[in-house]
Amino acid sequence: MGWMMFETVTAILEWLGLCAFAISGALVASRKEMDIVGFALLACLTGIGGGTIRDLVLGLTPVFWVQRPEYVLTCLAVAGVTFFVAHVPQSRYRGLLWLDAVGLALFAVTGAERALDHGAGATIAVTMGIATATFGGIMRDLVGGETPVILGREIYVTAALAGAACFVALHGAGVAREIALGAGFAAALSLRAAALIWDLSLPRYRPRPGRPTDEL
Amino acid sequence: MGWMMFETVTAILEWLGLCAFAISGALVASRKEMDIVGFALLACLTGIGGGTIRDLVLGLTPVFWVQRPEYVLTCLAVAGVTFFVAHVPQSRYRGLLWLDAVGLALFAVTGAERALDHGAGATIAVTMGIATATFGGIMRDLVGGETPVILGREIYVTAALAGAACFVALHGAGVAREIALGAGFAAALSLRAAALIWDLSLPRYRPRPGRPTDEL
Amino acid sequence: MGWMMFETVTAILEWLGLCAFAISGALVASRKEMDIVGFALLACLTGIGGGTIRDLVLGLTPVFWVQRPEYVLTCLAVAGVTFFVAHVPQSRYRGLLWLDAVGLALFAVTGAERALDHGAGATIAVTMGIATATFGGIMRDLVGGETPVILGREIYVTAALAGAACFVALHGAGVAREIALGAGFAAALSLRAAALIWDLSLPRYRPRPGRPTDEL
Repeated sequence: MGWMMFETVTAILEWLGLCAFAISGALVASRKEMDIVGFALLACLTGIGGGTIRDLVLGLTPVFWVQRPEYVLTCLAVAGVTFFVAHVPQSRYRGLLWLDAVGLALFAVTGAERALDHGAGATIAVTMGIATATFGGIMRDLVGGETPVILGREIYVTAALAGAACFVALHGAGVAREIALGAGFAAALSLRAAALIWDLSLPRYRPRPGRPTDEL
Repeated sequence: MGWMMFETVTAILEWLGLCAFAISGALVASRKEMDIVGFALLACLTGIGGGTIRDLVLGLTPVFWVQRPEYVLTCLAVAGVTFFVAHVPQSRYRGLLWLDAVGLALFAVTGAERALDHGAGATIAVTMGIATATFGGIMRDLVGGETPVILGREIYVTAALAGAACFVALHGAGVAREIALGAGFAAALSLRAAALIWDLSLPRYRPRPGRPTDEL
Repeated sequence: MGWMMFETVTAILEWLGLCAFAISGALVASRKEMDIVGFALLACLTGIGGGTIRDLVLGLTPVFWVQRPEYVLTCLAVAGVTFFVAHVPQSRYRGLLWLDAVGLALFAVTGAERALDHGAGATIAVTMGIATATFGGIMRDLVGGETPVILGREIYVTAALAGAACFVALHGAGVAREIALGAGFAAALSLRAAALIWDLSLPRYRPRPGRPTDEL
């Protein structure tokens, strides 16, 4: 299982991704001026929330972190460190966005692979990659009282989609696992990076005459 | 399984219901002026979210759509179409509310039946019918940043309750499956229709002297 | 299973805890002036929501209340009573906070024990205790449109942490089950009680110069 390969570069990046998501949860806690337990809760929710939903939907229970407390412990450590040093300079904050992009890209491909490994087809594998990469952040924003990230302007979910779809397509074409994972990761990361550098966004829906304005 | 009977009227109505819920999710995305990926996310969440929670709680995993990507693909198609034509005239919007009512009524009875099929008792079957019919909309509103629909004035959850309870009662009384399903569907739809036509609502809780006003 | 020991004091307190959480859900419904079905929905979500998430994550499905409708029925009865008598005097409201504290303390230890019973280690057992005790309230606030309780100032999640950790530590040290449960319950309840009486809170994160103020 790719998820567990501590000895590879993939695994190192994956733990960086977990940490990046956990830090993003802790930073929401810092904006709300919560106590350290609030930091821990949001760090765990963001770091392992997306993978938890993926495992529940696929029926892979107990979910991945129940027999591996190091996931939870890592999130707790990240929360503790962030509580005391969240007054980081702007330059490190920018660095966090990049770490977060790494997490998004990695979770998109590893989430899709875990679904394929358990018999899901291509559509569902891509769906699970997106869910793994984005639902942690969605829950972070809901519980932390923030505007949900998916309502933002920047390309985010789309990058996860690109990465998961690229990996699943290459995997289906018989490309070697390492290459397919690498290409998917690169696709997601480069799209997100481009969005961060050039402030890219997809065309958005614009109201037009005749559109109903009532509540649904 | 009623869920899969493409050859029957029930199945046709069920897919209409899925589409109606998916459209309602996409319309929330249009109100927030999201991009097409946001439309897709909210359409899927609303269309298959309620059934996903039902299957998770009952332990029916992988959940219903993992081996049947047509559910997800249908939601994606609905999202794409809505993105380009959401500026529908008011008359079609009214039509959507009726499609949504059809979805609510169908998911209430099919959700309850799926619970009964897997050994749940009457109380739990009704609960699962309500959850299947309403939790997709609740998640749509949470993730889309809308006021949750259950805080609204109109009869909505109550219609799901009526339909699920009617079906479970008739089923328990030994009535034929088709008749019980039809009666439950009719009960939910007619109550919701009455609420839409005459703006019906149940009596609401009113504050009275002595009621605590503190935060809990 | 401690969860089912109707004949003991633990079980009596546990049902009091369920009722307290259900009442807190119904009180949110009363603040939003919802109808009786809204009361029922929020009472069930708060009363059984935390345990549901615990069971899903541990893979214990169908979840605990599917074969035991009395949990749902109890929440419904509580919702009905609260709907008609929610204009309780302030003194009873204060009593509710204490009942809620009892629920928090009991769910923290019984949630942790259920995790241990199913093979989880210490870290995960404590995590599950916290989730069981707090996620019902978090979902109540999200669905009810309230500010999430974990954003509040008072010690709350921390009390669940203390109780679950105390129970798991004593259990790991070989202490008799009854004593470990009792000590964990007492730890959580006394910490929460102290917070209620003396308005205790943990130090909160304070912004310092150099902290980024951008959106994440």
